[in-house]
Amino acid sequence: MKLILKLSGKIFDEEDPQKLLTLKEVVKELVNEGNRVGIVTGGGSTARKYISLARRMGSNEAYLDLLGIWASRLNAYLVVFSLNDLAYMKVPESLEDFIQAWSYGKVVVTGGFQPGQSTAAVSALVAEASNADLLIIATNVDGVYDRDPRIYKDARLLTKINTEKLKEILERTQSVKAGTYELLDPMAIKIVERSKIKVIVMNYNKLGKLKDIIAGKEISTLVEPE
Amino acid sequence: MKLILKLSGKIFDEEDPQKLLTLKEVVKELVNEGNRVGIVTGGGSTARKYISLARRMGSNEAYLDLLGIWASRLNAYLVVFSLNDLAYMKVPESLEDFIQAWSYGKVVVTGGFQPGQSTAAVSALVAEASNADLLIIATNVDGVYDRDPRIYKDARLLTKINTEKLKEILERTQSVKAGTYELLDPMAIKIVERSKIKVIVMNYNKLGKLKDIIAGKEISTLVEPE
Amino acid sequence: MKLILKLSGKIFDEEDPQKLLTLKEVVKELVNEGNRVGIVTGGGSTARKYISLARRMGSNEAYLDLLGIWASRLNAYLVVFSLNDLAYMKVPESLEDFIQAWSYGKVVVTGGFQPGQSTAAVSALVAEASNADLLIIATNVDGVYDRDPRIYKDARLLTKINTEKLKEILERTQSVKAGTYELLDPMAIKIVERSKIKVIVMNYNKLGKLKDIIAGKEISTLVEPE
Amino acid sequence: MKLILKLSGKIFDEEDPQKLLTLKEVVKELVNEGNRVGIVTGGGSTARKYISLARRMGSNEAYLDLLGIWASRLNAYLVVFSLNDLAYMKVPESLEDFIQAWSYGKVVVTGGFQPGQSTAAVSALVAEASNADLLIIATNVDGVYDRDPRIYKDARLLTKINTEKLKEILERTQSVKAGTYELLDPMAIKIVERSKIKVIVMNYNKLGKLKDIIAGKEISTLVEPE
Amino acid sequence: MKLILKLSGKIFDEEDPQKLLTLKEVVKELVNEGNRVGIVTGGGSTARKYISLARRMGSNEAYLDLLGIWASRLNAYLVVFSLNDLAYMKVPESLEDFIQAWSYGKVVVTGGFQPGQSTAAVSALVAEASNADLLIIATNVDGVYDRDPRIYKDARLLTKINTEKLKEILERTQSVKAGTYELLDPMAIKIVERSKIKVIVMNYNKLGKLKDIIAGKEISTLVEPE
Amino acid sequence: MKLILKLSGKIFDEEDPQKLLTLKEVVKELVNEGNRVGIVTGGGSTARKYISLARRMGSNEAYLDLLGIWASRLNAYLVVFSLNDLAYMKVPESLEDFIQAWSYGKVVVTGGFQPGQSTAAVSALVAEASNADLLIIATNVDGVYDRDPRIYKDARLLTKINTEKLKEILERTQSVKAGTYELLDPMAIKIVERSKIKVIVMNYNKLGKLKDIIAGKEISTLVEPE
Ligand SMILES: Nc1ncnc2c1ncn2[C@@H]1O[C@H](COP(=O)(O)OP(=O)(O)OP(=O)(O)O)[C@@H](O)[C@H]1O
Ligand SMILES: Nc1ncnc2c1ncn2[C@@H]1O[C@H](COP(=O)(O)OP(=O)(O)OP(=O)(O)O)[C@@H](O)[C@H]1O
Ligand SMILES: Nc1ncnc2c1ncn2[C@@H]1O[C@H](COP(=O)(O)OP(=O)(O)OP(=O)(O)O)[C@@H](O)[C@H]1O
Ligand SMILES: Nc1ncnc2c1ncn2[C@@H]1O[C@H](COP(=O)(O)OP(=O)(O)OP(=O)(O)O)[C@@H](O)[C@H]1O
Ligand SMILES: Nc1ncnc2c1ncn2[C@@H]1O[C@H](COP(=O)(O)OP(=O)(O)OP(=O)(O)O)[C@@H](O)[C@H]1O
Ligand SMILES: [Co+2]
Ligand SMILES: [Co+2]
Ligand SMILES: [Co+2]
Ligand SMILES: [Co+2]
Ligand SMILES: [Co+2]
Ligand SMILES: [Co+2]
Ligand SMILES: [Mg+2]
Ligand SMILES: [Mg+2]
Repeated sequence: MKLILKLSGKIFDEEDPQKLLTLKEVVKELVNEGNRVGIVTGGGSTARKYISLARRMGSNEAYLDLLGIWASRLNAYLVVFSLNDLAYMKVPESLEDFIQAWSYGKVVVTGGFQPGQSTAAVSALVAEASNADLLIIATNVDGVYDRDPRIYKDARLLTKINTEKLKEILERTQSVKAGTYELLDPMAIKIVERSKIKVIVMNYNKLGKLKDIIAGKEISTLVEPE
Repeated sequence: MKLILKLSGKIFDEEDPQKLLTLKEVVKELVNEGNRVGIVTGGGSTARKYISLARRMGSNEAYLDLLGIWASRLNAYLVVFSLNDLAYMKVPESLEDFIQAWSYGKVVVTGGFQPGQSTAAVSALVAEASNADLLIIATNVDGVYDRDPRIYKDARLLTKINTEKLKEILERTQSVKAGTYELLDPMAIKIVERSKIKVIVMNYNKLGKLKDIIAGKEISTLVEPE
Repeated sequence: MKLILKLSGKIFDEEDPQKLLTLKEVVKELVNEGNRVGIVTGGGSTARKYISLARRMGSNEAYLDLLGIWASRLNAYLVVFSLNDLAYMKVPESLEDFIQAWSYGKVVVTGGFQPGQSTAAVSALVAEASNADLLIIATNVDGVYDRDPRIYKDARLLTKINTEKLKEILERTQSVKAGTYELLDPMAIKIVERSKIKVIVMNYNKLGKLKDIIAGKEISTLVEPE
Repeated sequence: MKLILKLSGKIFDEEDPQKLLTLKEVVKELVNEGNRVGIVTGGGSTARKYISLARRMGSNEAYLDLLGIWASRLNAYLVVFSLNDLAYMKVPESLEDFIQAWSYGKVVVTGGFQPGQSTAAVSALVAEASNADLLIIATNVDGVYDRDPRIYKDARLLTKINTEKLKEILERTQSVKAGTYELLDPMAIKIVERSKIKVIVMNYNKLGKLKDIIAGKEISTLVEPE
Repeated sequence: MKLILKLSGKIFDEEDPQKLLTLKEVVKELVNEGNRVGIVTGGGSTARKYISLARRMGSNEAYLDLLGIWASRLNAYLVVFSLNDLAYMKVPESLEDFIQAWSYGKVVVTGGFQPGQSTAAVSALVAEASNADLLIIATNVDGVYDRDPRIYKDARLLTKINTEKLKEILERTQSVKAGTYELLDPMAIKIVERSKIKVIVMNYNKLGKLKDIIAGKEISTLVEPE
Repeated sequence: MKLILKLSGKIFDEEDPQKLLTLKEVVKELVNEGNRVGIVTGGGSTARKYISLARRMGSNEAYLDLLGIWASRLNAYLVVFSLNDLAYMKVPESLEDFIQAWSYGKVVVTGGFQPGQSTAAVSALVAEASNADLLIIATNVDGVYDRDPRIYKDARLLTKINTEKLKEILERTQSVKAGTYELLDPMAIKIVERSKIKVIVMNYNKLGKLKDIIAGKEISTLVEPE
């Protein structure tokens, strides 16, 4: 099985080495069982810090996005160094780079690729180019809710939805200011739809149970392409 | 003034050196008057030929888009070689490359950057990163119509619209299969909106009158960001 | 066994996915039997289209050759994407790149390297650098004829010749205008001679019988270095 | 005059856009007066955050230093984007890259180059390679003290010392654990000595008075090579 | 005027800084008068030393040529460092690199590009791509002789010949073993012919009188393309 | 076991293919027994020749060091070509490049990385980044002496010392002029100390007995990090 795992930048904000060591164990096990794994990292608070500073200096949106991308690459290197021998030792900076890196057979870790798109879009591109069976979005909530769970305390978790429904939900909250893309942006959804990629949204605090989640035995949201 | 000019790949399909020589003359004049010019080229029939062949071989959508991107770079080199001394002699392959290339002061010509987006999205990214005053989309029709003019003979040309209206029109026709993005895809419009970029859609057969079009004296469509 | 296969650009002009799928099958079989395979692609009609357009714009010969090289790289990517997992996923752009790519153990596919030489010269360079046992030139005729078979209908196929004889025959027809190098240019022959590389010229429509041709059981021309 | 300015990573930790805008003003003025300016940025708290996290994951010292280097490059891009047109738009990643970047005539901004050395060593290398007249080290204290001023409240500022004396002072406090190099490491001093580079250590809060400091009219330390 | 100057590797074997300082003076003067200058360096005794050692270790001809190419690049860097501000600070490694480097307006210095061709072929390619008016071959003899002057003491200098005649003369002496290409190889002559490039062969000991030689007032050989 | 072998540039000065063939045999044996091997080459007389010539032309110390680095890379390619299939076919130019190269599993050969440090420092950096068990310094004397053995005929070989003692000895002889770093420079020792790397200094004429030396059965010096 080929799977792409997208990690919210927020996992790095917690500065907890244990979370990265758990990630390493899960990835090692998956690889030892013959699976191929790709990882995409978000930019988290490092991205937000640099973007905020540069916005107050008057930089344009493209430059702000680039700072977020470089921050996400710093997170990616943290994962690369934790995986060490399991990983391709360079963080690809474009889909073309990723395709070459992927062909060596190791775990490939990327951050962002380009302004104007989220790291979730990167994970969809990477899943498409590697003919992945599954795209897993690991974030700080348990899955997709009917409303933004950070804002609405009574938001309900959806265990299974299609991309049409997902678009409808996200349209109410999404924005494209640098550093504010959330969960999945329109490009991510387009890619998922055109290549019929199966998506699971899960909580990164449950990475230790990733195999149960893939098997549908643990809480998460399954997004099916329309 | 800084302006980015997006050329439909169809201008190269006509295999008419005169069109490229006219382009060269216009660009030279603009540069001599102190303007900065960036150019983005579509993939045209070369892209469609390779995409079609690879689709029949069973390639995934990401690979198909990459073939279209390389075709668009071939078109870009045709423009580079026609401009010669006026141009930066390498076609940038990402926005990061473009930003560096742009800083040398010459005319920079790019093709596509990445699967999942059109060359129109590239032109919007490039306009944003260079703080351009104007994005000109030169295509094989006179501007934006209320319906796809290739299909509906009675489609009416709109001389001025906003991006909200444009989205509404395009939503009926747009698709994201490799090689079928048209006019402006959702990413292009998002960028144009978030950075308030002024857009003109015009016919590439009127490139010789580009200055009149910019001055609003010739037929074309002005798209204003919402 | 290590073998380098040079494909005429004309095989891509036929826009027949079956030819590329046959190629894939043959390469897969060779690789599975423990052989190493390198592939070099010509530029074909895409090259000729761009060269012709640029020549009419007044570009110099070096630029024209570069357009032909980029066209050949587009053909090379078509082969890369058809081979997918079997292939090194990047088309090397110089012999130094090729040497590095080759050392990973996958099938490496290149287009042209440099103005002033044909893709046949590239295939000879690549054969020399990889210590190949055999260089196969697959073209749209059955082998080397005593006269250009496109022009003289009574041209006779030669089943075995040496490089001295080959040079004599080619000297009557070769030219070095961009995009017009044919079969083997002087550099290709020099390399073949200095490194004593065995060459077979065959018809690309017989790629399905490549193993028979190598075994000498099917029509083709064997060129022996002097 | 050619001058290299080394900025402590701590200037970015303050997340104060005003400091970067002041820097921009000073650099612009220097450039307009015909001077060449190079800038080297430290890694600051971003470096320390990533190094600390990776150290707790068990990474080796080389990897820790690399994380610090990438953090310093993020700081460098912040400066690049603030300078915009004044700057070379790519952060060089080695001295070879710097030399090429420098030759274009713009302000070049670098972060770290390599594990095992501080960004102060980078600034000395860069000063040597560009035949700079002056290396300015801007940090969070007013100059060189007879003891580490962060620890000893009664440390005395030295307005002029030679490198022999400096080595003596620093030997008591320097360390080479990743992220803990301070002020100037042994390599920085060796370079300064072998190429007789004049050094000024100053407070980055006085960047607005940089020209007074160069003229010796404001508090700072002048380090003369032995 | 645009001119390309090819320096025999032998000029570096003499280890005489004065020769390089004379070269610098001449180049500076030419540049100050508004000319564009490109330089190509041979590999000389460094190339021969490494090639001989590797040949005795059993390396193939392509690897031997590569060692010669890297040696020629070492010579090229010597010229780059002597020219310093006048020069593009990186030695291009292919014609594509050269074209980009050339467009910045500085003196560009290259060594070899590729196995299978001499640095004289490189100089012809570079002359063609830059639309040079003149290619100057500076070597250790006064021009082209009717026989190899190193072997035949009674060889006669020819002050003016065409490329047909030159081919005839060189055919008797040329060889393509790595490190033994001399004066002009077949590729160099082909390029010169197809692009009608004017060539002067001169003695590098007379570089101080380069302007007189160009003006036809000093001994040398003028080679006219057929 | 992972081991890094640093070869003095002097081994190449002897122009003896047998020495490189012995090296190849030893490396092949080590690799076949399951060890990982990295090699770092010094610049030797080629470096000294170019540095001397450029110094007399007036180049700065950074440029002189770069010439030495390129010379060491030429030596590195000689080793790469002798190892051929065993080796990664490109010489990494920075520690970042090395880390990526190392992850492919082949023998990686580097020359110098950066001005201001010796190739011994490179070997220490490389040993640290690859978590090597052992760093072997192969030079033209049998190990570390209490005084420079080239100058003092009565210098005594030390079979075991710690880094404190080594620093004391070297401090009397070390210099940092380009091309004159010897044995181990301060950066090399700092790296060895901070990462507790075990070092053996041996004679390159005894490479055939490398395994005995590692086992402590042959004359050499063991340096233990303090
Ligand atoms: N309907 C919804 N269901 C789930 N989450 C939602 C929804 N709408 C908005 N969100 C928000 O999306 C966030 C997930 O985005 P996430 O943090 O994974 O992206 P990221 O870009 O990688 O992170 P970062 O920007 O921090 O690097 C959640 O924290 C949640 O608040
Ligand atoms: N409402 C509309 N108004 C104008 N054009 C439209 C509209 N809807 C669809 N189109 C189509 O969009 C096309 C313009 O796309 P264009 O050819 O410029 O893109 P491109 O991707 O660069 O081209 P190519 O793919 O050939 O390289 C027109 O030919 C037109 O038929
Ligand atoms: N004798 C001394 N005089 C002055 N400063 C000293 C002395 N000894 C130690 N220091 C310390 O050196 C520090 C300066 O290092 P600085 O922060 O500029 O380096 P940096 O590596 O760029 O920073 P960062 O690691 O935060 O990016 C001061 O904060 C000071 O406490
Ligand atoms: N007919 C001829 N006229 C002039 N020179 C000739 C002729 N035939 C052979 N040669 C030789 O060609 C040599 C010039 O080649 P040159 O040294 O310039 O090439 P290079 O490849 O750059 O040098 P290197 O290989 O040393 O770097 C002369 O030394 C001369 O002996
Ligand atoms: N105490 C000492 N013990 C051993 N060798 C010493 C000592 N002091 C100085 N040396 C010198 O160090 C030299 C070893 O340096 P080595 O030649 O290995 O370095 P390198 O930089 O790789 O060589 P090169 O510069 O020739 O490439 C010996 O030749 C020796 O003369
Ligand atoms: Co986000
Ligand atoms: Co299109
Ligand atoms: Co052809
Ligand atoms: Co620090
Ligand atoms: Co030669
Ligand atoms: Co040395
Ligand atoms: Mg890139
Ligand atoms: Mg580098």
